[in-house]
Amino acid sequence: MNKEMLKPVERYGLFELKLKDLGETDLVAGCAVFENENKQIQVSAFRNKRNEYIVRFMPDREGTWNYHISIDGNEIQGTFECVANQGKNHGRVITKGHHFQYEDGEKFIPFGTTAYAWIHQTAELRKKTIETLADSPFNKIRMCVFPKSMPYNTNDPDCYPFKKKADGTWDVYDPDPVFWEKLDKSIEDLMNLGIEADLILFHPYDRWGFAELSQHDSLIYLEYCITRLSAYRNLWWSLANEYEILYSKALSDWNEYGELLFKKDIYGHLRAVHNILDPFPKRTWLTHCSIQSSEINKIPVWRKEYDLPILIDECGYEGDLPYPWGSLTAFEMAHRFWWSICRGGFCTHGETYHREDEVLWWAKGGELYGESEKRIEFLKELLYTLPGEWQMPEYQGTNPNLDEQDEKAVREAKLFQKALDHADKVTKENFMAYTTPMKIEGEGYSLEYFGHIRPAYIDLNLKEKTEYKVEIIDTWEMIRQTAAEKACGKMRIKLPAKEGIALLVSRVGMWQG
Amino acid sequence: MNKEMLKPVERYGLFELKLKDLGETDLVAGCAVFENENKQIQVSAFRNKRNEYIVRFMPDREGTWNYHISIDGNEIQGTFECVANQGKNHGRVITKGHHFQYEDGEKFIPFGTTAYAWIHQTAELRKKTIETLADSPFNKIRMCVFPKSMPYNTNDPDCYPFKKKADGTWDVYDPDPVFWEKLDKSIEDLMNLGIEADLILFHPYDRWGFAELSQHDSLIYLEYCITRLSAYRNLWWSLANEYEILYSKALSDWNEYGELLFKKDIYGHLRAVHNILDPFPKRTWLTHCSIQSSEINKIPVWRKEYDLPILIDECGYEGDLPYPWGSLTAFEMAHRFWWSICRGGFCTHGETYHREDEVLWWAKGGELYGESEKRIEFLKELLYTLPGEWQMPEYQGTNPNLDEQDEKAVREAKLFQKALDHADKVTKENFMAYTTPMKIEGEGYSLEYFGHIRPAYIDLNLKEKTEYKVEIIDTWEMIRQTAAEKACGKMRIKLPAKEGIALLVSRVGMWQG
Repeated sequence: MNKEMLKPVERYGLFELKLKDLGETDLVAGCAVFENENKQIQVSAFRNKRNEYIVRFMPDREGTWNYHISIDGNEIQGTFECVANQGKNHGRVITKGHHFQYEDGEKFIPFGTTAYAWIHQTAELRKKTIETLADSPFNKIRMCVFPKSMPYNTNDPDCYPFKKKADGTWDVYDPDPVFWEKLDKSIEDLMNLGIEADLILFHPYDRWGFAELSQHDSLIYLEYCITRLSAYRNLWWSLANEYEILYSKALSDWNEYGELLFKKDIYGHLRAVHNILDPFPKRTWLTHCSIQSSEINKIPVWRKEYDLPILIDECGYEGDLPYPWGSLTAFEMAHRFWWSICRGGFCTHGETYHREDEVLWWAKGGELYGESEKRIEFLKELLYTLPGEWQMPEYQGTNPNLDEQDEKAVREAKLFQKALDHADKVTKENFMAYTTPMKIEGEGYSLEYFGHIRPAYIDLNLKEKTEYKVEIIDTWEMIRQTAAEKACGKMRIKLPAKEGIALLVSRVGMWQG
Repeated sequence: MNKEMLKPVERYGLFELKLKDLGETDLVAGCAVFENENKQIQVSAFRNKRNEYIVRFMPDREGTWNYHISIDGNEIQGTFECVANQGKNHGRVITKGHHFQYEDGEKFIPFGTTAYAWIHQTAELRKKTIETLADSPFNKIRMCVFPKSMPYNTNDPDCYPFKKKADGTWDVYDPDPVFWEKLDKSIEDLMNLGIEADLILFHPYDRWGFAELSQHDSLIYLEYCITRLSAYRNLWWSLANEYEILYSKALSDWNEYGELLFKKDIYGHLRAVHNILDPFPKRTWLTHCSIQSSEINKIPVWRKEYDLPILIDECGYEGDLPYPWGSLTAFEMAHRFWWSICRGGFCTHGETYHREDEVLWWAKGGELYGESEKRIEFLKELLYTLPGEWQMPEYQGTNPNLDEQDEKAVREAKLFQKALDHADKVTKENFMAYTTPMKIEGEGYSLEYFGHIRPAYIDLNLKEKTEYKVEIIDTWEMIRQTAAEKACGKMRIKLPAKEGIALLVSRVGMWQG
């Protein structure tokens, strides 16, 4: 029995112990118990390479942790100190109602980007990607475990997750440590930058056979991922990119993955499935919706249907490709962030400017050349200054200022509601979106976004006897301009009659409050 | 019995005969038969004012027409010559498949605008409206018989369609000739400019009681409209603006109007009903769809459902009002024309720039201040040069260049189609729109529009051994630039990577052909 005293680990940090020269051969093996006061947590070790197993653990409490490991007839025991988390370390991201937050209570608003195959590129390019991210506003990145095959993704990676069997098929029992150490390092680099790794476990854009793994092999791979990676606090499980077109998998297969993650990931990292057509159906193990859609006005519908945070993880990318998904203007990309936020959801970025060298950010990482990033950062900075969480105002009908004394108006409002209830479901949704401002409200403030609508003025109906500051925000120019210092009651505010304008109304004194 | 020789009338022109000093008192009275060779057409007279009835007739054949009128015991007989139509006179607009055309075979592509209450303004303002229209590309205008009440429409008109009964309600049996002569003149002024009067018979924005007429009174009014106005070749019947919110009318009432028009308007002017929520249901008497929607991608769905021309008569207006329907940029307004055309439909313009004097084009006419008009004109001029009618290419699946020899690709295409067939109806429609180019094709040419998508290049796959001219069109700058003179086969065309670009590919020599 060995007993070691290891270096301290931050709360939510990664405790790791390498075990060598064991007779064990299973992929996931042994039993490790971590103990702090009355809390006991059990994990397994995983095979890293021949004769090397690793135990990983993320402590969520400060203090002394003891561990006992039984593996291959050996008993290993030890202790480490868990010290306070600091800097960008706030633990896992969890959900809270329709919002996200860090485990330690710190605010987290997702501002994601996308570089599906960045880990499959050269070390030099990976380094550049990390540097770009370090300078960016992005705090989440969608990325694939498996390499990607499609236009602009024609290069082969330098290594693969598994070695091959004699018959040329992948041996999921024989993970290639070169690949997995690269993946570890990539997740760790992101972690150190405070960036969540939204790790895509399966995807259809494949020419190597990873999309065709049997369900048995897929589950072996998935359990290996859980054992190896779940101690990284910045990990999110994205079961799929475009799950419907992974034709080898049935809905029941996806359920099996979701349930396995639900049961075996002791940390409960976020779990979602990204779609190409309709959002993945409601399941208990889903923690949020990861949606591909440009129908951002549907966020309130999905909020109601799923009662989960709604993350528009793909709504098109800033770029100039001859594909509608890869050809948004910078304005439109930034607009979709504002739009998503002010409809009660969140949005994800990507960039697809054509380059002869085919190094497009959305695929390979590298550098960002676009103009939306700065605007997204501007929005992020604004949102992070807002106190507490925001809510979506309820749909108030087409006339929110209906005079209840006006019998005709009341009767007509009821008749209209009846017509609306009889309309096509989508017409009704569209109409409600059309007549509901893009607006969020929090304690003492409201933020309304006009998007492509560009009014020359707006009539406000503020509370009497309360003082409000009214600010006009030009989301493209990134300028906040005070339109009224101590406003109250009914008033007309002149607006610049251009696209991309928002209005922040905040109670005077709330920023100190 | 009188016999008069009247001045010649153009084919499709207005023959009019005033009958005075009759004892008749009915609103619509008498029987007039117009005869040319073996053709006999029967119309009624209408009361214009006390002791003055009018018979109107639009001849559709050149030659000598005899007429016999029986009214109030009098027999009136006469003859007039019908001479060739000329200038902007091409007869009524009729439909042909999913297109429109003039009765004499001349091309008609609707480029409509909207000035709902222009006839209810001062003579000076009406004159200005006609002057503005004369200088505009617009060849159709949406306009209401009844005055309009809503924001920016707060003034009362100088006259009303009917006089009032002693109890203060409208007497539909007592039309005010001051009003109707003004309406005649307005339609005639438009006719002389070659502009179709898309006459809205009922609408909900009312404070005078016209929206509350009984069904009986509505039918009396409608028959009067038919008898009085149908001899104007440039008349279209728009039964309603936003029919669903005329709460006093049931769907069966609208049917009754449609059927009355179908039976009593001997000229068969175009008939449609404008909606606020879903398009008016399919009815035999509908000649086209007059749709309010900003879902322009749905045009192919509606084409299939109705098998009629699809006219997006309201999709928002160029302006800066604090209402989403009145706040489009000029780019977006012009874009929606290109978008509608290249999805197989047509679009209608309106302008709503806030003005302190409240004279907004969409309501009152007057002047146009916007920037979309010029771009709409540019599109109109281009389309009028295209030979014949265009078609919509069929949806070809997500991979129109599918290699039938590639078994995996064929299998996956089938599986995707299956997934698509199982998706939500709207998701399926959206996906098909997303993956189908905005493109029309005619004999020897194709016109593709990229809209908000802004590719840096496009790969063409033209026929071999045929020479094509490839032109890049900047719809905002209104510039056509030749990208290739004698193109064929596969080739890559560089595009300017900005919004609002179209590509015209035409067979060399087709313009002469």
